[in-house]
Amino acid sequence: MDERAALRQLAATLPYAGDDAAVVDDTAITTDMLHETTDFPAGTTRYTAGWRSVAASLSDLAAVGASPTAAVAAYADTAFDGETLSEFIDGAQAVCAAVDAEYVGGDLDTHSEFTIATTAIGAVDESVDRAGATPGNRVVVTGRFGRSAAALRYFEQEAFDTANDLFQFTPRVDTGRTLAGVATAMMDSSDGLARSLHQLAEASDCGFAINRAAVPVADALSEVADDREDRWEAAVHFGEDFELVATVPADAVADVRAASPTPLTEIGRVVADDEGVGVDGEPLADRGYTHA
Amino acid sequence: MDERAALRQLAATLPYAGDDAAVVDDTAITTDMLHETTDFPAGTTRYTAGWRSVAASLSDLAAVGASPTAAVAAYADTAFDGETLSEFIDGAQAVCAAVDAEYVGGDLDTHSEFTIATTAIGAVDESVDRAGATPGNRVVVTGRFGRSAAALRYFEQEAFDTANDLFQFTPRVDTGRTLAGVATAMMDSSDGLARSLHQLAEASDCGFAINRAAVPVADALSEVADDREDRWEAAVHFGEDFELVATVPADAVADVRAASPTPLTEIGRVVADDEGVGVDGEPLADRGYTHA
Repeated sequence: MDERAALRQLAATLPYAGDDAAVVDDTAITTDMLHETTDFPAGTTRYTAGWRSVAASLSDLAAVGASPTAAVAAYADTAFDGETLSEFIDGAQAVCAAVDAEYVGGDLDTHSEFTIATTAIGAVDESVDRAGATPGNRVVVTGRFGRSAAALRYFEQEAFDTANDLFQFTPRVDTGRTLAGVATAMMDSSDGLARSLHQLAEASDCGFAINRAAVPVADALSEVADDREDRWEAAVHFGEDFELVATVPADAVADVRAASPTPLTEIGRVVADDEGVGVDGEPLADRGYTHA
Repeated sequence: MDERAALRQLAATLPYAGDDAAVVDDTAITTDMLHETTDFPAGTTRYTAGWRSVAASLSDLAAVGASPTAAVAAYADTAFDGETLSEFIDGAQAVCAAVDAEYVGGDLDTHSEFTIATTAIGAVDESVDRAGATPGNRVVVTGRFGRSAAALRYFEQEAFDTANDLFQFTPRVDTGRTLAGVATAMMDSSDGLARSLHQLAEASDCGFAINRAAVPVADALSEVADDREDRWEAAVHFGEDFELVATVPADAVADVRAASPTPLTEIGRVVADDEGVGVDGEPLADRGYTHA
C-alpha cells in the first residue's frame, strides 16, 4: 500500500481527516512530518528547516481559511547541538511571527535521522473544504509555481543561499482568510498544481479547463529550467510549493483579487466532471513528484 | 548536548515551553514523538502504539489541568499496510473516546523507522504549572507506579497480551481537571516519580519529604520484581508511567481525594528548598531511566 492508498483509508475511517486540516468546533488542527532524506536536501540550514516545516502546517491552516494561533514541533536528531537547535527555533519563530501565530516549542527526541513533526492550530470562522467547486466557477491561485523545484536545482548546484531563500515560503494565511467566505473549494498545492486540481476534481465531482499561459511560474524556475517543457513539468508536477488553489464564483473574482494581500491569478474554470482535468484542451496527467 | 540540556535551552528561549503543555489564550497544546527503537518493544501491537502515543500527549494536557478536545498523529513507517494502520487508528480513537476527545487523523510519512508524533489540544480554564509548590503542601499522586516497568518485563518474557494491556494507560484527565483549581504545582510522571519530584523542586524552589511506604506500586510490578529494592527502583526511577504528581494545600487533601475519579494517594509533603528531595530521611537520587 502506498501513501496515497493509505491516506484514502484514513479518510474513510476518520470523519475529520482527508482535507488539509481537521476542524473541531472552531479550531483547525493539522500535523506534518518531514525528514532529512526526503525533505531537507544537503545544504538546508536549520533555520530554513524550522521555517519550512512549521510553514507547511501553517499553509494547511491557510488552505481551510483558518487564522493560525500556535505551532509546535517535535524535533528529532541523532544528537543535539545548541547552535543548530537555536537556528531551528529562530526559523520556526520567524515564520510564526509572519502570520501572527506563536511558536510554543515542543518535544525533543533522539532518532536515527533528523526528523521534524509540526502541528499548527488556528481559529476558524467559515472553513473551506475541497468539495464545493461548481461548473462555471473560476480557478484562482496565489503566488507563482516552481519555487521549490527551482530551490532543489540550486541545492544541487550548491548555490545554498539562493536555495535556502527559495525554500522559505510565506504561508498564504491572509489570502486564505480572504477566500474563506467566498471560495467554493480550496486546498494548498503541496503535491503540485496538477495533483491539487485532480484532488479538487475528485472531491467536488467536477473537471477543470486550465489555460496554460495563465499559470504563473516563479522567476527563479525560469532561470534554471532547461527549456519550456522542463519549466512546465517542474512548475505543475513537482509540487512542494504551498500556494493556494481555490475555486470562486465567476462574479466574485474581481473582488477577491482586489482584497487578497497576495496576488491572485485566474488560471481557468470549473467544468463538468465528464470533461476531466485539462490544459488548453489536452488532459493534464494526475501525476506529482513521488516523494520517496 | 543531551536531551535534558537541550530541553533547558528550549525552555530558556521559548516563553511558553518547559512545562508539559504550552498554554496559548485558552488552549493548551502539546506534542510528543515516539519511535520503535526506544518506545515500542517487540510485541507492541499497533493498537497499543496508537493508544499509548496519543495517550502520552493527552497525559500532558491532564498535567496542566486542560480538557482535551482533539488529537492528531503523524504516522511514519517503512511501508504501509492497511491492517496495521487500522489497528493504530482504533487504538488512537479508543483512548480519545476514553477522555471525550476526537481523534482527527494526521499525516503519513515513509521513514526508515516506525515513528509516531502526536499532538493534542485542549481547553484550559485554570492551568497549573510546576512552579507553585509551597512548604507545608502535601504531595498527591494518581494511580500506581511501575506499570510500564512491569510491561517491559512482560515484553521480554514474550507475555505479549499482559504487556500490551499494561502499556495502554488511561490519561488522568478527570483528575487533572479536579486538581486544576486546587493544586499549587503539577506534572505527569513520564520521566519517573524521582525525576518528577526533582523537576517540581527545581521549578518551585522547594524540597520534598516522601514516605516510601505510602508510594503506591502497581500489582503487576510486584509480581515480576526480583525483590524489594528492584521493585522500588523500577517503580520510582524507571518512569514512562504518566501518573499525575501534584502538590496541594494540606487542608484541601481530603476534598480532592474525595472528588478525584482516580484514586489519589498522599505520599509526602513539601519542605524547604535546603532540605532537598528525600525519602524516609535519605536523599532521593535525581535519576530516571535514560531513554536511548
